[in-house]
Amino acid sequence: MTGKIDGDRLWRRVMELAELTERERPYTRRSFTDLFLEGRVWLGEQFAGAGLELSIDSGGNLVGRRAGSRDELPPLVIGSHSDTVSGGGRFDGIAGVLAGLEVAQTLGDYGVTLRHPLEVVDFLAEEPSEYGLSCVGSRTWSGHISTEDLKRVGPDGETLGEAIQRVGGVPSLLGPEPLRKPGSLACYLELHIEQARVLESKGLSVGIVTEIVGITRHRVTFVGRTDHAGSTPMGLRHDALVGAARFVDGVSGKATAFADGEDYFVATVGQIAVAPNAFNVVPGEVSLVVEHRSNAKELSKRFSGELERLTNEIATALELTCAFETVSTANPAICDAFVRDTIRNASEDSGNGYLVMACGAGHDAMHMADIAPMGMILVPSRDGRSHCPEEWTGPDDLAAGVDVLYETVLSLDATLD
Amino acid sequence: MTGKIDGDRLWRRVMELAELTERERPYTRRSFTDLFLEGRVWLGEQFAGAGLELSIDSGGNLVGRRAGSRDELPPLVIGSHSDTVSGGGRFDGIAGVLAGLEVAQTLGDYGVTLRHPLEVVDFLAEEPSEYGLSCVGSRTWSGHISTEDLKRVGPDGETLGEAIQRVGGVPSLLGPEPLRKPGSLACYLELHIEQARVLESKGLSVGIVTEIVGITRHRVTFVGRTDHAGSTPMGLRHDALVGAARFVDGVSGKATAFADGEDYFVATVGQIAVAPNAFNVVPGEVSLVVEHRSNAKELSKRFSGELERLTNEIATALELTCAFETVSTANPAICDAFVRDTIRNASEDSGNGYLVMACGAGHDAMHMADIAPMGMILVPSRDGRSHCPEEWTGPDDLAAGVDVLYETVLSLDATLD
Repeated sequence: MTGKIDGDRLWRRVMELAELTERERPYTRRSFTDLFLEGRVWLGEQFAGAGLELSIDSGGNLVGRRAGSRDELPPLVIGSHSDTVSGGGRFDGIAGVLAGLEVAQTLGDYGVTLRHPLEVVDFLAEEPSEYGLSCVGSRTWSGHISTEDLKRVGPDGETLGEAIQRVGGVPSLLGPEPLRKPGSLACYLELHIEQARVLESKGLSVGIVTEIVGITRHRVTFVGRTDHAGSTPMGLRHDALVGAARFVDGVSGKATAFADGEDYFVATVGQIAVAPNAFNVVPGEVSLVVEHRSNAKELSKRFSGELERLTNEIATALELTCAFETVSTANPAICDAFVRDTIRNASEDSGNGYLVMACGAGHDAMHMADIAPMGMILVPSRDGRSHCPEEWTGPDDLAAGVDVLYETVLSLDATLD
Repeated sequence: MTGKIDGDRLWRRVMELAELTERERPYTRRSFTDLFLEGRVWLGEQFAGAGLELSIDSGGNLVGRRAGSRDELPPLVIGSHSDTVSGGGRFDGIAGVLAGLEVAQTLGDYGVTLRHPLEVVDFLAEEPSEYGLSCVGSRTWSGHISTEDLKRVGPDGETLGEAIQRVGGVPSLLGPEPLRKPGSLACYLELHIEQARVLESKGLSVGIVTEIVGITRHRVTFVGRTDHAGSTPMGLRHDALVGAARFVDGVSGKATAFADGEDYFVATVGQIAVAPNAFNVVPGEVSLVVEHRSNAKELSKRFSGELERLTNEIATALELTCAFETVSTANPAICDAFVRDTIRNASEDSGNGYLVMACGAGHDAMHMADIAPMGMILVPSRDGRSHCPEEWTGPDDLAAGVDVLYETVLSLDATLD
């Protein structure tokens, strides 16, 4: 089967948006920055050019809407995000937003009017923002953001609420109440790059997700004593960095053991801050973030317990004080069985090979599963790379995935109410 | 014996200079900053007020000169530094510069004209600067700075040479040639806080230094692979931070073993940089600085070898690449026997208890030992604290040390040529 969507148009857009990057650190378009807003302006023009009605909702999300013939029906929603990590890639999130746009535009090209309205969404700040929170936009839809979260302070002293307002949202309307009531969406679909090597290794173009792993993040702080690195004998030190080092090594070892079973398990210390971070001073304080991900809630709970124990053991051994705080917890998200079957049928009809699989990366879809039947389509990542400039999905793979998304939308529009 | 120097005047000056600090991070007056230059202006006024002739030399050092009756004789020099680490104290370096000033002013108070000229020096950037080099000023005097060092680039893209020029130096005159020829100084004296607990624990006011430990610094870099923290299985990771963690823990363990002998030995990882340092990205690169200090050259050499081996072992085990670079080496510096005896005689005459001891911290005196007979006087540090706001030396201890310095200068002036 030759697909209906315009793969060249889609590809051109991916490459064009990639140009809006910090020059010295491609590909970087951090949420809430001027560059991010430039990207939003460009996206808005593309949405409008494809006939979508534009709005920025209270959560600071960019929404493009295409009316349905029965416009009172709950909308079919396709979403992802246009922000990147620092030094990230051109596809993570972006592919999903532009896939939604391509589906909407293809409907127009073929003169198809869906029964349901269709919404294409660029969710705000999916990547961990400077406020220490990820998936900000999809959290506002699903009610997974608290008024405390909105008070989180970024590097310039601006609160998350103020930042959301700056990009067009209305923070006073946000909080535990979801912006979109459970049941008010016909379904939520997201196409995303796999960010792993499985599809590539099997020569397949499409992954159909069964579940997205849950993510737990803890902030761990070790406080010792700032001392002179020359005159403080080894035996009298309370070196916070030595504590953190044992913790990082311990996390890696324990996670490797936890991963040695049927269930998916990974854990990472990716961020660390040392004070005063001068080479002739014994570090007095180190704070770090550790995250772990699994499809098995029980495993995550047990790992959190082991991490807290490890923190305390290290602090006792080195005579440090410590703090162990759970920053965020997201349970595994189950994909809707009917939506998943619809994606599988579309994949089979397309003639492209597909794989039914779990997803190790967190996505906006994770939060949307709480308020809507959710389905996800993965496309291959070359060499499994992502969150780096080498991140790549070939144009044919991308087009194959978006074709499946298009057929899925047509099919769900016909069958859902 | 009641000392001749004016302890109250000295103390007032210490407290007054301490006021020139970053407000939110006392006590911070980093070299090359506007605050540092404000401190220099204040120092210059104090020097001038005490009758010293002011100059900034080619190395960017502030020199106050008092003529001798035989002014052609080589000068007696008293020096230290007025810059601080980030979040440091009020005494480290500062006490030594103001001690020199107090000695010069006391000579004037008593109408004493020395045979030798006397120079009081505020050496530039003794603490590790943003250019990764410590003791910048005393290195220019002793020829321990290279033209490569002058090209080191700081955070704003300014080279060290440009920064020296900005504070009044002449970088084109600097390099391997010492600004002060060996033998051109009658002696070099430095008073400094102990930065350890030995004097306090023995209830003594004065330490007479036998030798200053040598310092070796290495930069160690581990390069792995930047990967998605959710979708990269534990077994496929090349996590640079896990490598660095093992290294930090290894350094601490090995140094503790090395310290378990007769010789002085400490090692520290105080500074670490993680890239990209985001909590959902497997760290791709970590670079750190490790330093070790000992009075025994052989021990330092052996430790450097063990660190290089450790680096390579870790890199091999985790499939990382690594780099091990020696940033700087300073041999142990031996204090001149005659100068040391003169300090001891002055201490005995003063009636204050003293201790003959090694010094674990590096100082400008370390570099000066290469070009002049060098002697050092230590004064107690409360609870051994330094490089932190709690750094403290009581006014009586400080005055006792400076009295010994004053008497030492009188005695050396009479005996040296």
